[in-house]
Amino acid sequence: MSEIKIIIAGPRGRMGSEAVKLVTTTEQFKLVAVLDHKYGGMMLSDVAGFQTISNVPIYTNIENCLQEVEADVLIDLTTPEVGMYHAKAALEHNVRPVVGTTGFTKENLAELERLSYEKELGCIIAPNFAIGAVLMMKFSQLAAKYFYDVEIIEMHHDQKLDAPSGTAVKTAELISDVRETKKQGHPNEKETIDGARGADYDGMHIHSVRLPGLIAHQQVLFGSDGQTLTIRHDSYNRASFMSGVKVAVETVMKQNNFVYGLENILD
Amino acid sequence: MSEIKIIIAGPRGRMGSEAVKLVTTTEQFKLVAVLDHKYGGMMLSDVAGFQTISNVPIYTNIENCLQEVEADVLIDLTTPEVGMYHAKAALEHNVRPVVGTTGFTKENLAELERLSYEKELGCIIAPNFAIGAVLMMKFSQLAAKYFYDVEIIEMHHDQKLDAPSGTAVKTAELISDVRETKKQGHPNEKETIDGARGADYDGMHIHSVRLPGLIAHQQVLFGSDGQTLTIRHDSYNRASFMSGVKVAVETVMKQNNFVYGLENILD
Amino acid sequence: MSEIKIIIAGPRGRMGSEAVKLVTTTEQFKLVAVLDHKYGGMMLSDVAGFQTISNVPIYTNIENCLQEVEADVLIDLTTPEVGMYHAKAALEHNVRPVVGTTGFTKENLAELERLSYEKELGCIIAPNFAIGAVLMMKFSQLAAKYFYDVEIIEMHHDQKLDAPSGTAVKTAELISDVRETKKQGHPNEKETIDGARGADYDGMHIHSVRLPGLIAHQQVLFGSDGQTLTIRHDSYNRASFMSGVKVAVETVMKQNNFVYGLENILD
Amino acid sequence: MSEIKIIIAGPRGRMGSEAVKLVTTTEQFKLVAVLDHKYGGMMLSDVAGFQTISNVPIYTNIENCLQEVEADVLIDLTTPEVGMYHAKAALEHNVRPVVGTTGFTKENLAELERLSYEKELGCIIAPNFAIGAVLMMKFSQLAAKYFYDVEIIEMHHDQKLDAPSGTAVKTAELISDVRETKKQGHPNEKETIDGARGADYDGMHIHSVRLPGLIAHQQVLFGSDGQTLTIRHDSYNRASFMSGVKVAVETVMKQNNFVYGLENILD
Repeated sequence: MSEIKIIIAGPRGRMGSEAVKLVTTTEQFKLVAVLDHKYGGMMLSDVAGFQTISNVPIYTNIENCLQEVEADVLIDLTTPEVGMYHAKAALEHNVRPVVGTTGFTKENLAELERLSYEKELGCIIAPNFAIGAVLMMKFSQLAAKYFYDVEIIEMHHDQKLDAPSGTAVKTAELISDVRETKKQGHPNEKETIDGARGADYDGMHIHSVRLPGLIAHQQVLFGSDGQTLTIRHDSYNRASFMSGVKVAVETVMKQNNFVYGLENILD
Repeated sequence: MSEIKIIIAGPRGRMGSEAVKLVTTTEQFKLVAVLDHKYGGMMLSDVAGFQTISNVPIYTNIENCLQEVEADVLIDLTTPEVGMYHAKAALEHNVRPVVGTTGFTKENLAELERLSYEKELGCIIAPNFAIGAVLMMKFSQLAAKYFYDVEIIEMHHDQKLDAPSGTAVKTAELISDVRETKKQGHPNEKETIDGARGADYDGMHIHSVRLPGLIAHQQVLFGSDGQTLTIRHDSYNRASFMSGVKVAVETVMKQNNFVYGLENILD
Repeated sequence: MSEIKIIIAGPRGRMGSEAVKLVTTTEQFKLVAVLDHKYGGMMLSDVAGFQTISNVPIYTNIENCLQEVEADVLIDLTTPEVGMYHAKAALEHNVRPVVGTTGFTKENLAELERLSYEKELGCIIAPNFAIGAVLMMKFSQLAAKYFYDVEIIEMHHDQKLDAPSGTAVKTAELISDVRETKKQGHPNEKETIDGARGADYDGMHIHSVRLPGLIAHQQVLFGSDGQTLTIRHDSYNRASFMSGVKVAVETVMKQNNFVYGLENILD
Repeated sequence: MSEIKIIIAGPRGRMGSEAVKLVTTTEQFKLVAVLDHKYGGMMLSDVAGFQTISNVPIYTNIENCLQEVEADVLIDLTTPEVGMYHAKAALEHNVRPVVGTTGFTKENLAELERLSYEKELGCIIAPNFAIGAVLMMKFSQLAAKYFYDVEIIEMHHDQKLDAPSGTAVKTAELISDVRETKKQGHPNEKETIDGARGADYDGMHIHSVRLPGLIAHQQVLFGSDGQTLTIRHDSYNRASFMSGVKVAVETVMKQNNFVYGLENILD
């Protein structure tokens, strides 16, 4: 594979700074520019934390950037609004977008899909780049075809506000798509303390553990006569997203169509 | 240690038949009689399932049994009512009782304690003989002095009716005894599906998983800054109770006092 | 789906007796005969352990059985030699074989494949019917395309003689098929006690735990920057094989080709 | 409890900076000075990373420090040589040492014990401040009295050079101290690939897993008939040491004797 020339939007964010590290340390990748709302006209090496990265200009405006810099892929790790604007501009300049955002509307997705189709260019939108989490969900959906009973235990640090986690609900949705609704547990089971059996999602039970020390963990447990199958993902830090970004960049160069969700490029 | 002569009450029950196996295969133990409400006057080897066990008479009446047979210990695995009657009769005949039952009242326990004290004879009443489960509870109580945040996940087959399990509640009680009440999790945490955060016991959260295939499992998770400590017990079958019965028999011969709960003889 | 008429060979074996239970309790399945080297001419209800199962004749000779009884599927849980003979006879009488055996030679498999092709009849040979174990291996192979570092921990009761287990080696083989050989761990890592890093299979490490109490468990751990993915199977008893037999019977009726390995019918 | 006045030696190290954070954020603790081989005469707030911490002078010489500053406890997180010198000086000035170092000789320990005894002052030397790891070892030793079969699985990132880890070996030692040597596994067990059964330490087996993504994890598995008991510690970052330092400071104020090892103050 020849070198892939990459622009990163949002290089100073938590995901973005990991992406800069990924691109500048991967042999086949080359960082050719970054997009930032600050520091336009400066070099990335002028910014604290990036002193060792040479020859990467900073742009505040994507049109200017795409006119002046030759690139293959745009990695966008900004906000849904900015990401949408960037992705459209990229496709119009024949640059393939890899966008990590959870907030795109159905209209946004439809518009990008149409543009990707017209330009015959790959475009990948991924709400979750943690390859392990995506595989966990994919495997859970596969397993649910043979194991009709499943419970999800997700475990996070105790600063998390919402329970269950988004990943747990997404996992339950994916399982729900492939199985008939089943009310699990004994028909006459009884909670002697409310909530013991967890949250009910379409007959499945989801349990949310919150403890200091924990980071982000989930296990999906399947049971049938005489056996259990467990699929578990442990995420320890943000570096976990980068293998997913790498696969997405490699794939977006090979495919000429629109993809939503990392699970659809992992085969 | 010289040979310990043992009577078993309830030899045909699920626990009882395991106890017969334990006593007849342990070198220092000798089965001298069994108590059963059926088959009085027959030999144990006449009963289906026990054909290979020779020279063990069956009694239906404990008084007759204790008058005719010389014994050191009575292992009682019957019901609370029968167990109480048997334990008293045993102490009066200078035989030390080891009783596995969950249903004794406070008055029962007080009466046996008084009798044990008067006769200066060991007497052990244990609601749970699974040594691993008892150690899990004991360690959890010890850990709770240093880790103020704890969640319990208990997992059982889906034929179980009650949630949480008795062991989970007992574990929470033991932890509660040694820590100040603490409302765990983020003060503003929110369940987007009811029950996600499990049952609340004095600020701790208990989660009950039910799946076919599972048998009886519990994990107690402790968290603090940057670390977690997990204590887990898996019970696969009834044989798990027998190491506890063995320890209890050995201990009841050495101690001349009343003990309630296996945790109090494991040091 | 209309009723599937089934013959079981080897009904008194450990797997076979579970299969009898499965077939007689599954609504769409009907047990029409059994093959046994004993009790020919009797009814299955005459045999200890099967008293409640009515109207199932016992045959010692498969030719007689297939001539007298109308059947759709033969489930064979005997030995490789008998299984081979039975499978051929079944195909020749237009009955679809589902055979659970680990000992078939390549020649056996080729012969059955040819016969299945000629008769245009489904035929499934599966060395392992535990659906959870098969999915664990399948998912491991899929995950290995994205996670280049993997270790396998298999855990069994301490009566097991060989280490590593067959399933662990099979899992490593399947992973090896899809990844470039990688010597894992630090290049300069050092064992201060021999064997600490486990068995080396093509750069992967396999660890075999043996403890009383354990039954049959395996976890496959994948790691990459900041995350781990774990796939675990726990097998508690022989009933765990039956969901695989059920899927195989349903599939063999729908497909008209030869299949070796349950993994090839789980999609 | 009244306020405890604390000096920290080694404030800029990885452990030391966590200790500064602990002491300055714990209500009953007060940081009164730090010892550093640099920056003598400056204030801690002049040093990068500590700008918000006011009124803490830096000393390079412990004698000067102890003469000018009134203190109750010295937390030393330097090297064995410096730590030894500091601990002696502290005791002589009636300041109680809490020292975290793994390198003290037997002579060092004996000398500090004598000095602590003469001055009737608490002194705690702890090679490992991770309370969870210390409890795991303590519980393992307790469990080994009732479970005679145990295997240890330790799991670390793949940059670790030695296998097994120090904590795993220490755990095996502690278990060895309380049980008769037992050669575990089946007497005729056979490794079909060398190393599968792990490292042998006095009959116990230790398995070392190395994967990118992992941090520092250990589980101790005990098995007996029909049950397993697992004690697991996960350490995610250096903050995990601080709860141990906190307990040590509180204890050293209450006890007037010498203690080696955190396990001896956790009851």
